[in-house]
Amino acid sequence: MRLSKFPLHTAKETPADAEVVSHQLMLRAGYIRKLGAGLYSWLPLGLRTLGKISQIVREEMNAAGALELLMPAVQPAELWQESGRWGVMGDEMLRFKDRHKNDFCYGPTHEEVICHHVKQDFRSYKQLPVNFYQIQTKFRDERRPRFGVMRAREFLMKDAYSFHLDTADLEREYYNMRGAYTRIFTRIGADFRVVKADSGNIGGAMSEEFHILAGSGEDLLAVAEGGTYAANVEAAETRPSGQPRAAASAALEKVSTPGQKTCEQVSKFMNVPLTGKVKLLVVKAAGGGLIGIALRGDHELNEIKAAKHPKIASPFEMAKPEDVQKAFGCEVGYLGPVGCPIPVIADHAAVEFADFVCGANDNDHHYKGANWGRDCAEPETADLRQVCEGDPSPDGKGVIKFYRGIEGGHIFQLGQKYTKAMSLSVLDAQGQAVTPEMGCYGIGVSRMAAAVIEQSHDANGIIWPDAIAPFRVLICPIGMDKSAAVKEAAESLYAALTQAGIEAALDDRGQRPGAMFADADLIGIPHRVVIGDKGLANAQFEYKHRRAASAEMIPATAEAVLEKLR
Amino acid sequence: MRLSKFPLHTAKETPADAEVVSHQLMLRAGYIRKLGAGLYSWLPLGLRTLGKISQIVREEMNAAGALELLMPAVQPAELWQESGRWGVMGDEMLRFKDRHKNDFCYGPTHEEVICHHVKQDFRSYKQLPVNFYQIQTKFRDERRPRFGVMRAREFLMKDAYSFHLDTADLEREYYNMRGAYTRIFTRIGADFRVVKADSGNIGGAMSEEFHILAGSGEDLLAVAEGGTYAANVEAAETRPSGQPRAAASAALEKVSTPGQKTCEQVSKFMNVPLTGKVKLLVVKAAGGGLIGIALRGDHELNEIKAAKHPKIASPFEMAKPEDVQKAFGCEVGYLGPVGCPIPVIADHAAVEFADFVCGANDNDHHYKGANWGRDCAEPETADLRQVCEGDPSPDGKGVIKFYRGIEGGHIFQLGQKYTKAMSLSVLDAQGQAVTPEMGCYGIGVSRMAAAVIEQSHDANGIIWPDAIAPFRVLICPIGMDKSAAVKEAAESLYAALTQAGIEAALDDRGQRPGAMFADADLIGIPHRVVIGDKGLANAQFEYKHRRAASAEMIPATAEAVLEKLR
Repeated sequence: MRLSKFPLHTAKETPADAEVVSHQLMLRAGYIRKLGAGLYSWLPLGLRTLGKISQIVREEMNAAGALELLMPAVQPAELWQESGRWGVMGDEMLRFKDRHKNDFCYGPTHEEVICHHVKQDFRSYKQLPVNFYQIQTKFRDERRPRFGVMRAREFLMKDAYSFHLDTADLEREYYNMRGAYTRIFTRIGADFRVVKADSGNIGGAMSEEFHILAGSGEDLLAVAEGGTYAANVEAAETRPSGQPRAAASAALEKVSTPGQKTCEQVSKFMNVPLTGKVKLLVVKAAGGGLIGIALRGDHELNEIKAAKHPKIASPFEMAKPEDVQKAFGCEVGYLGPVGCPIPVIADHAAVEFADFVCGANDNDHHYKGANWGRDCAEPETADLRQVCEGDPSPDGKGVIKFYRGIEGGHIFQLGQKYTKAMSLSVLDAQGQAVTPEMGCYGIGVSRMAAAVIEQSHDANGIIWPDAIAPFRVLICPIGMDKSAAVKEAAESLYAALTQAGIEAALDDRGQRPGAMFADADLIGIPHRVVIGDKGLANAQFEYKHRRAASAEMIPATAEAVLEKLR
Repeated sequence: MRLSKFPLHTAKETPADAEVVSHQLMLRAGYIRKLGAGLYSWLPLGLRTLGKISQIVREEMNAAGALELLMPAVQPAELWQESGRWGVMGDEMLRFKDRHKNDFCYGPTHEEVICHHVKQDFRSYKQLPVNFYQIQTKFRDERRPRFGVMRAREFLMKDAYSFHLDTADLEREYYNMRGAYTRIFTRIGADFRVVKADSGNIGGAMSEEFHILAGSGEDLLAVAEGGTYAANVEAAETRPSGQPRAAASAALEKVSTPGQKTCEQVSKFMNVPLTGKVKLLVVKAAGGGLIGIALRGDHELNEIKAAKHPKIASPFEMAKPEDVQKAFGCEVGYLGPVGCPIPVIADHAAVEFADFVCGANDNDHHYKGANWGRDCAEPETADLRQVCEGDPSPDGKGVIKFYRGIEGGHIFQLGQKYTKAMSLSVLDAQGQAVTPEMGCYGIGVSRMAAAVIEQSHDANGIIWPDAIAPFRVLICPIGMDKSAAVKEAAESLYAALTQAGIEAALDDRGQRPGAMFADADLIGIPHRVVIGDKGLANAQFEYKHRRAASAEMIPATAEAVLEKLR
């Protein structure tokens, strides 16, 4: 492509309302333009990258045996009423009425629609398994769309849905997709981790996320150094240490702690480490009753784990101060398991030490020397806390370290949640109706472009991996309008690379070298070839990889350039 | 592709609610499935055809120098308010509010959005001309969506928008696009005509439509046999014959015609040909006054032409009977230009003959022997009628014949309608701000698939042109599960064709020949190769083109098959 025919729209200034680097660079480099909150147009340069990501996704999905189709973006409300989600999707789902006043939504996902179609066309176990996917524009009406295309309202997504006769076959396809996703993220050139995930309101038994690692990522990941365990922190398990608890050695003593309400205050005031304190949170369980959750002083509650505990369940909420006052006769800052008037469930780590400090359920007082089984009952225990850096991996191999990641993909074993709700069934080999098992598999195609930039840029601009760069090579001729030799060498290299199937761009705009190089760095083309009279006098081009600190001279031939691309 | 891994969803029954052949066949052959009124999913087989059409469009747009981008489907109301179209688009535009109660629409077209972007990024004449296009899902909330994907509410469209410094350059690009469209429609394998069109509410000076000819087409086209003129009937011009009018030879005579209100009744009653009668329609012009329109008895008013006449203008309406009664003192059935109390504008053909019959502006009475200039004033004349078959072409070359067509593309010279409304300007070479000229160019990508089927099918199913068939070749092995020779020959042909870059499908489902051939015909793969033991005994395959009446035997080699594809 000649840049004289393919206008760049680059800018030096960092846009004021762009918070993260990828958003800033995509605007400055002319990849995207904002139309409204969470609404972005992809300019020609950006669309080339978006198209390359889509094509890699498509190739790997096809290679894995999935079948591409295309479902409408606009979906009738009836389908969502049938699955029971019309009432629970909240404001994130964009709803509207058509001219006949019928209800529709702009599909945020397509479980209902694909079930509708499979129900029409699938009758027999012989037609299973099947895995349908589409690459399609979705809309989610985020409360606060931000970070450009990273968390846009309208975005491009690959969503796939598979159907199976049994859970074993669902699991097989799940790992088939996991393999395809691994190839997709690898081919795109991303540094990524596959982590266990919470299935959220999509539902299902098992799910994993594919995260592109980046300091700006919104998700915190717990990854075992020296092991293979990896999970989103919200889903990362913790295990009992397995060490027996030391015997009680201190007597229970009530201490006056006026105004000392937080663990940190108490720890400092009483001169005990945070790890020697037990804190008690009070929640109002889904069933309505109050439950105390005991955690070690330095630990945080994992609300997703709490919601999954059968005695707490979803939706639960933190108890209101007035409810606590009523039940305990004291303020929230002075709660503890000793003499606790409500049932207590303790995180494993909260019961592993003796002689602990805790609130005395009396304003301005704490206990020290408290012990489980002696001063209060041994509580029911569960995994309820957030994992911490330095924790042993729950599988026993390695130590947890935190990373930040950007979720690029998510795969789910849904089971029968939707197939049951939508009354799907096929006849098995014995002629019995069975409800298929379902999996679903998503990739945020447009988000991937931004995520890769978060991971791969420098002060001058984007650094694209070859596979998703809008062009692989940028040819920069110096003084093309004045030097016939430069013009001829540039044109001939451009023709030779194009002929060899390499997507090359020729900067024939007649810009000064400084402006040309600044644009080259900003838009992030991985390979740059500078052609000038000085080099040509020695039969040389100047070659620089976008990531390299400095340029090098290479023979002035297409072969030498092609060699650099290998 | 192996059909064992690429399920067909064919049906013998014609769906009850599908009116046109393409809709019936696309459902029966498993190309599309209905989700709701005007909402269709493209199953894998259909998406292959849709993808091929998209790719042909993309290649020709790129080759013509247009730049692909992708704009959001969801558009803020503010842009439409700026262009003035928010208030005039009517119910066809799907409108909704987001969670913050701001107004948006699902874009039916993107003039406003592209102007918004060009305004941001284009400052200088040096950046022009430019032509941006996208291939994108659109939504138009048709009152009565019908004919499957032919007139769906959600559909795939290619829309392009070009910007120019002057009208000469706009015209140059218009013809550049006209050439690209001609190549697109030709490559797709459609029999089509380019016809002059009315610009409708898009606006602009000049526009043409690309019609795929088919008896079921909703548009009537006037095409000159023995000439090059072609126009949508609604836009087809007519010209004065150029023959001088005969002199008046009869005296004006008032005749009693009780109850004879229509031209046909009067013609029969008075025994004069329809071509000897002048009829007078009365319209209420946009300005509010009544105007009489005189037409030859056998001619019909072209309302689009009337709306463009400065004295009638848009929106006009047919006068109500009570208004006619008040102005003429008689009923609608007895009107005429003689003694007419309101201004008269006559179509050219209505003033070309003498001694005519017309209403006497008196109930139950007509005149005969009426003459312009003698019994009433010579009226202002204009081109106001629908063209008729047999009319001379308005350019004097050939005779008009009617065809029916399906609009697949529409190109417009918009001029400054949107650039002015959206306050676009660039600086010209003299540093003066100028408003760019704009063109726009659309193709109904998803509609094209249906239109080609309307044109190309038989009683057994679809007949795809090679370029947009989901597969070019279908290999049908007979008794593959029983005969090792058949299996080997089929697999080896499949491998060889795939290797040669031919998209082949292998019917390895183990169906009986009858079912296999019925599916082959229904889904419309252009080339079919049947492999059986009988043929193989003579080293032969059976080859049949989908359009051929009968099959032929060819050597049992991939080369012989490839020869047939050339």
